Amino acid sequence: MNKPLKFTFRFHLTYRLLALTIAVLVVLSCQQKDSTSSTFGMVIHGGAGTILKKNMTSELEEAYSTKLTEALSYGYNILNNGGSSLDAVETAIKILEDSPLFNAGKGAVFTHSGTNEFDASIMDGKTLMAGAVGAVKHVKNPIALARLVMEKTPHVMLTGEGAEAFAKEQGVELMPDDYFFTERRWKQLQRKIERGKKNTNPSKDKTTTIKGLEFESSSMGTVGAVALDKAGNLAAATSTGGLTNKRFGRVGDSPIIGAGTYANNRTCAVSGTGQGEYFMRSLVGYDISVLMEYRGMSLEKAANTVVMKKLVKLGGSGGVIAIDKDGNVAMPFNTEGMYRGYVDRDGKVIVKIYRE
Amino acid sequence: MNKPLKFTFRFHLTYRLLALTIAVLVVLSCQQKDSTSSTFGMVIHGGAGTILKKNMTSELEEAYSTKLTEALSYGYNILNNGGSSLDAVETAIKILEDSPLFNAGKGAVFTHSGTNEFDASIMDGKTLMAGAVGAVKHVKNPIALARLVMEKTPHVMLTGEGAEAFAKEQGVELMPDDYFFTERRWKQLQRKIERGKKNTNPSKDKTTTIKGLEFESSSMGTVGAVALDKAGNLAAATSTGGLTNKRFGRVGDSPIIGAGTYANNRTCAVSGTGQGEYFMRSLVGYDISVLMEYRGMSLEKAANTVVMKKLVKLGGSGGVIAIDKDGNVAMPFNTEGMYRGYVDRDGKVIVKIYRE
Repeated sequence: MNKPLKFTFRFHLTYRLLALTIAVLVVLSCQQKDSTSSTFGMVIHGGAGTILKKNMTSELEEAYSTKLTEALSYGYNILNNGGSSLDAVETAIKILEDSPLFNAGKGAVFTHSGTNEFDASIMDGKTLMAGAVGAVKHVKNPIALARLVMEKTPHVMLTGEGAEAFAKEQGVELMPDDYFFTERRWKQLQRKIERGKKNTNPSKDKTTTIKGLEFESSSMGTVGAVALDKAGNLAAATSTGGLTNKRFGRVGDSPIIGAGTYANNRTCAVSGTGQGEYFMRSLVGYDISVLMEYRGMSLEKAANTVVMKKLVKLGGSGGVIAIDKDGNVAMPFNTEGMYRGYVDRDGKVIVKIYRE
Repeated sequence: MNKPLKFTFRFHLTYRLLALTIAVLVVLSCQQKDSTSSTFGMVIHGGAGTILKKNMTSELEEAYSTKLTEALSYGYNILNNGGSSLDAVETAIKILEDSPLFNAGKGAVFTHSGTNEFDASIMDGKTLMAGAVGAVKHVKNPIALARLVMEKTPHVMLTGEGAEAFAKEQGVELMPDDYFFTERRWKQLQRKIERGKKNTNPSKDKTTTIKGLEFESSSMGTVGAVALDKAGNLAAATSTGGLTNKRFGRVGDSPIIGAGTYANNRTCAVSGTGQGEYFMRSLVGYDISVLMEYRGMSLEKAANTVVMKKLVKLGGSGGVIAIDKDGNVAMPFNTEGMYRGYVDRDGKVIVKIYRE
């Protein structure tokens, strides 16, 4: 009777080990599946332009890096806790708007008349709803106002004093002019006005102005964020103070849906920074999306095609950050540098400034 | 000797007839070729919406038809004489802006505060240059100002008082408020304000407003023109007074490049009219262009896909006029009617209002 018993015991042991192995494999496979279904991610930018290491101090580098990391971490934390991509991009942008380092919110450049005017937009990739504000003053966080336009009105874009009246009606935080005063931006305006005065050949200047925009690094610093949340929803947001010394209520690409900002759950979310007029004429955000949708390109190929080929051919400089519905990330730029950062698949924050 | 002579004569006659036939065919073929190489054309619209025959008088029908024919004829004449598509669309739009019949220029609807605010844009398909103005007042022909933005500044979009300051600097014709006063539009505003007051359930109203825009026929009447000139250059232009009773500096799709207006020599020129917010979120103009470029669709198929399928799916109503680089024309609309017209290949003006 011993032999059969031993056999049975051995069989049971083998059987149990096999069952355990299968169970472990099933659990691991489920985890793998769960980890795929909860792919999420975030990318931000703080402007593209003539950003050269030789012109930077290590203190300034550190300041930019710290602020970008902070914005990314707050946004990523929202996503990690199951929050929405809209909340993540709005939170990240607000942090950058509240910093004097970037050309948005507090750190915005001055217009010709010495005021600060903001453009911002946000888009929900799930519903294709969007909100934007153009040429608004006194609003502490233009991106929050853009989101209210999306969620509380039937409109996409509100501008000027009207948008500020809407902000008051919604109880949005308004700030006095001096909140937006930064010594650095004021000096940039004075230098630009002085250079304008020194130009004694207005006709020559006009030709130059018409043929090619002089986009100085002083105007750079538009901020943007894109995110994919655990529910698979994409969102994009962009905020800017526009161009130093700008006149005539000029509005750039940042508040234009499809140009500076675009999100669509079928494809990707994009935020742009650079020579706004070229982004508007090229429909940069939407073009990246439709190159994926209509041409079957990957996010990386679509973003590179638009930023490194099509924009360059038209004469426009700048960059974009983008994330697709699978969590892939792209950050192409055709300028010397772009303040940018993302969180990798292990949750590690990566921040970069220059070309690599 | 007679027989051979007769034969020779007959042979000569047959030969001559044959030569003549060949010569005629060659001339005809050359003419055909010449006519193809100088293909040109023009399409215009005067707004889409709830335009029903039962609500129209024959006098009003006649008035719309006459004005659309006049605008088309002037524009087409420019093209026929070798002029540019940009001149043709600007001229046609100016004629419609100067008429009290359409919601643009003189006939613009009133904002909530009883003012008139205009949006307009123009795009050159050859260079992809574009100009737009948003929320401008007092400008007699907003389309002419949009063209000046394109040609005299490095910008694409100027808004509000800034755009009016630019208009003054450029010597553009400004008009006092009463020039834009029309009894019909004033009554429309009063009716809409009264209806707003009668609504005693603001929360319900808010939900309605947020979920779906009430675009009344009173707000319809945006005007647009697209043209292909003999040099093969496409152009598009759109002008509007926006929505009756609009507030907060709302800007719609008409001044947004890629939404209400788009032109690209590689594909087509498009001008839209309808629920602007849906056109902005759908990038209607650019989408038609890229469906042709990336998907190889014909103009007709691309325009139908966007207006009759994609817009409808999103819940947006309206229509577009479009012309492609080969002179093909499309005018789809998903509303009851659209004031529209084109010139056919024989130079005959065709104007239509209702569905057919």
